[in-house]
Amino acid sequence: MIKIASVARGEIPADLVIHNAKIANVYTLEYEFGDVAVCSGKIAGIGEHYDGIINFDAQGKVLIPGMIDGHVHIEDTMMTPQAFAEAVAVRGTTAVMADPHEISNALGLSGLEYMFRASQGLPIDIFYGAPSCVPASDFETPYEPIDMTTIKIMFDKNLVQHLGEMMNFPAVINGDAEAWGKILAAGNVPLTGHAPNVSGKNLNAYLSSGVSSDHECNEISEAREKLKRGMWIMIREGASFPNLKTLLPLIHENPLNASRCMAVSDDITARYLIEKGHMDEKIRIMVKDGLNPFIALRLVTLSPAEYFRLYDRGGIAPGKIADFSLLESDVIDENFKIRYVWKNGRQTVRDGEVYDISDNETTQHIAPVMKTAVKKIPSLEQLKVKYQPDKNINVIGINERSILTTTLQMKPKVDYDGFAVPDIENDVAKIVVLERHRDTGAFGVGFVKGFGIKRGAVGSSVAHDAHNFVVIGTDDLSIQTALKSLAKMGGGLTVCDEERILQEFALPIGGLMSYLTPAEVSRELEKMENAASNIGIKTAHPFMVMSFLCLTVIPELRITDQGYVDITKGYIQEIFVR
Amino acid sequence: MIKIASVARGEIPADLVIHNAKIANVYTLEYEFGDVAVCSGKIAGIGEHYDGIINFDAQGKVLIPGMIDGHVHIEDTMMTPQAFAEAVAVRGTTAVMADPHEISNALGLSGLEYMFRASQGLPIDIFYGAPSCVPASDFETPYEPIDMTTIKIMFDKNLVQHLGEMMNFPAVINGDAEAWGKILAAGNVPLTGHAPNVSGKNLNAYLSSGVSSDHECNEISEAREKLKRGMWIMIREGASFPNLKTLLPLIHENPLNASRCMAVSDDITARYLIEKGHMDEKIRIMVKDGLNPFIALRLVTLSPAEYFRLYDRGGIAPGKIADFSLLESDVIDENFKIRYVWKNGRQTVRDGEVYDISDNETTQHIAPVMKTAVKKIPSLEQLKVKYQPDKNINVIGINERSILTTTLQMKPKVDYDGFAVPDIENDVAKIVVLERHRDTGAFGVGFVKGFGIKRGAVGSSVAHDAHNFVVIGTDDLSIQTALKSLAKMGGGLTVCDEERILQEFALPIGGLMSYLTPAEVSRELEKMENAASNIGIKTAHPFMVMSFLCLTVIPELRITDQGYVDITKGYIQEIFVR
Repeated sequence: MIKIASVARGEIPADLVIHNAKIANVYTLEYEFGDVAVCSGKIAGIGEHYDGIINFDAQGKVLIPGMIDGHVHIEDTMMTPQAFAEAVAVRGTTAVMADPHEISNALGLSGLEYMFRASQGLPIDIFYGAPSCVPASDFETPYEPIDMTTIKIMFDKNLVQHLGEMMNFPAVINGDAEAWGKILAAGNVPLTGHAPNVSGKNLNAYLSSGVSSDHECNEISEAREKLKRGMWIMIREGASFPNLKTLLPLIHENPLNASRCMAVSDDITARYLIEKGHMDEKIRIMVKDGLNPFIALRLVTLSPAEYFRLYDRGGIAPGKIADFSLLESDVIDENFKIRYVWKNGRQTVRDGEVYDISDNETTQHIAPVMKTAVKKIPSLEQLKVKYQPDKNINVIGINERSILTTTLQMKPKVDYDGFAVPDIENDVAKIVVLERHRDTGAFGVGFVKGFGIKRGAVGSSVAHDAHNFVVIGTDDLSIQTALKSLAKMGGGLTVCDEERILQEFALPIGGLMSYLTPAEVSRELEKMENAASNIGIKTAHPFMVMSFLCLTVIPELRITDQGYVDITKGYIQEIFVR
Repeated sequence: MIKIASVARGEIPADLVIHNAKIANVYTLEYEFGDVAVCSGKIAGIGEHYDGIINFDAQGKVLIPGMIDGHVHIEDTMMTPQAFAEAVAVRGTTAVMADPHEISNALGLSGLEYMFRASQGLPIDIFYGAPSCVPASDFETPYEPIDMTTIKIMFDKNLVQHLGEMMNFPAVINGDAEAWGKILAAGNVPLTGHAPNVSGKNLNAYLSSGVSSDHECNEISEAREKLKRGMWIMIREGASFPNLKTLLPLIHENPLNASRCMAVSDDITARYLIEKGHMDEKIRIMVKDGLNPFIALRLVTLSPAEYFRLYDRGGIAPGKIADFSLLESDVIDENFKIRYVWKNGRQTVRDGEVYDISDNETTQHIAPVMKTAVKKIPSLEQLKVKYQPDKNINVIGINERSILTTTLQMKPKVDYDGFAVPDIENDVAKIVVLERHRDTGAFGVGFVKGFGIKRGAVGSSVAHDAHNFVVIGTDDLSIQTALKSLAKMGGGLTVCDEERILQEFALPIGGLMSYLTPAEVSRELEKMENAASNIGIKTAHPFMVMSFLCLTVIPELRITDQGYVDITKGYIQEIFVR
């Protein structure tokens, strides 16, 4: 005799029964009043008059399936998987599909292994994608490249469930053997994509590889073309790129598209999670936009479950795992708010607070730090840029409203000793990237315009995607102090002024993540941003802006430990031009 | 460099290009004009101006994705997989999900192995489900039972792709270890169901096993409940059970339900395939019923592909296998008709005729016959039923309009020697079932009312589900002649009169299938039905009606080699009752 069948028939008591629930059904888009009986972490039955060992009266409030984020980078929150899980569990999230390419750049395979270990026993399920683009390009220097054999090892070890976003779309389109080898190494799993503005025959070439989703649509026309070509559309609504309102017409114009779309976060911050929320915030935005609430719910439950082949979840139905949340209200509307959450039939959130978070108390003791102590800090002499008479300098132009940079060519400011130096009056600062994974001492120096810094330096070990040390400063002493501060912390964020460290925030886990709680991380980041403001920086999120200046897959001019990189032309660029 | 990417970009010629097609897009429900480029059997790209080594001008006709039948029993057509494939390929079918439980009853694992072998190199892909209910009940005697270890072997050998219909829903609901063991042995694959009229807590119990689909809904209310419980609904439209019109309101009322439903055949005959068609006929019915033609198409392409996790097909899109068909017309309407078909980019149907059918010319030489020659034919003496004075006899009552039978209790006709004999004036004939797989000589004798036979006997080795020999006759000599005829043929259909065989149709493959072409099978069946008609039988499909009298999972009274089976009470029933 099988226990769950007996529970389902109502012959023996369930482990847990949620009574008097108003169940939101994502299959038929309707409410149903009744009980939900749970046995061994699975839903045994739905109906009237179930008895449980534990009985919970839902008092007619809405019960929804556990919500699923189809694409998120946990490292971007600067929190451990455990702290991240707490932050999103209270929002009704019970599973996320995480792309660990940041930690994989910083720590290689062992970074992913840490994330996997740290994700056990949490109030959410974290499924990882194999990072498909480490390094993002040959111009970046990660701890170690993740090649196709390492991808295969990740799958063989069951560390990953899908292929993480294939950002190197030019390589896929061009039939590059390394990129295709990674895709084939992943095998018959969901192959997630990243293909901004790719269309027409290039899109055909990208899709001929089997990649089947995209989260980079900024325009509805782009999303329509990708849908038409058989892709699943991940509608991104994160801390930096809010695309929901732009792309929701896709669903309005044809509700059947809800079966090929989902809402995801991509990048998200601790502050966003605390102040706005997670998938619950997406529901509020969608409902406010006039979408049928059940369809909104489907986009963060059943649809991602189907795309990621998680057949054991996505709706409240017999045989599915018992992941569900009770709202504060008896209707799904703009005030959508989670009050109770159950994961595998176990209550994890009570009255909006995490209640039973983890079996994984030892997580923080096993986290890896930076692989290598950075000792080779450039001398003040080395940081200097010898002026080359009659030449202009290339300068990275920061755009206020876009992640794209431009290549500026300008006459440099030259000091009495014949060195090109920052020109603060014209908002031109010096930028230095120091290799930090192997302590090779390699560094690149350049100039950047538009950061707004007035004195001192800001530094970070969060520098997409290779995450070397990046520092922007007005003078070499401040820059060197910032590098030393980062080296001493083993990674983190820093604000310095000449020899003084004004504010530090250590990120000991791979130089990317801290052990602090969501609220503490949010507070530390605020302190860092205030300190940056105190040395004149007006940009809202200076550390984020700086972190993207090293990312060599977005045009136009970037900088790494190898020097300037011209993305459009695809080569290393000198500082001086004629 | 990867070839398909180069083809997709239009840089080198494709293997095949379909030019000027009006492509039916099942993702966005619209037509698109353009070319489809094929490379190595996959779709490389869609768009304008592709060049191919082979170029085909579609002349603006509609190109649709290859159609998929989500549930069919090939053996019911009495054709080999090869002949079946020919019959459905011309209708635009490129894949079927076949449940081989008939051949598995007749030949055990080797039956499935034959089907698998015979399915290679055909113009369609045939994916098999592991037969989950062999025997259908303990009252039936198949060649060998398929237990959970055999199910596991089938998966380990990659003979099967999903679990075949779990018809033994009472066992699943009751938590029977054998039934659940088969489900667990199948693992994380689509677990297909069969649960007529199962609802409420019994449905919960059935679904708590992970079974996820059903094709037995005869009423829309039943389908709605199953959808709500997370099941996929297979809307059946076969030769005997046409449910499309009844269940289509499901899709009309909520188009999003198209993502959880599909149209399937279940049972189908050679004649139906020839005269009406296959999935094309379902399209015609759906479009005639007012359904959006693209949604109709989705129900036989993308939806079954998604349920059966065939991520490589379901729509015309880059990266999918090149399975598609060109219609005769430039619109999908009630006259929907297939003219050309390509399978893996290779033309298989030209001008409505199979053109390039098979690499598998040797199929018929490796087919297994019946395992055992039947030698133990009951003697005339043994076939007699000694009358027990003052007792009534149980008689199987055939219903004209339903597959259900009733238990009739009536006073028997008794001959001069004191034997209960057929009462032709009252339409009561004798029915005999003889075990044929192991030549045990075991047989059951009973009476049947409502078959309309006036003289002689009809016999068959198609007798659901164990497929022993079944004969209905008016006298023991005719019955014995029919049994001898079946034994001599090694299975088939027969019509006899006393010592004479009036008409025979041999089914040498497991006593279920012939080597003939679809047209020949249809013609032979017609001859058999005419011969049956000549001995007075008025039932339209006497061999089908007779074949279901042995199926011990449908109420009320059935007969097997073990004797009468009372399905409702669940025991062997005697002929005589007080």
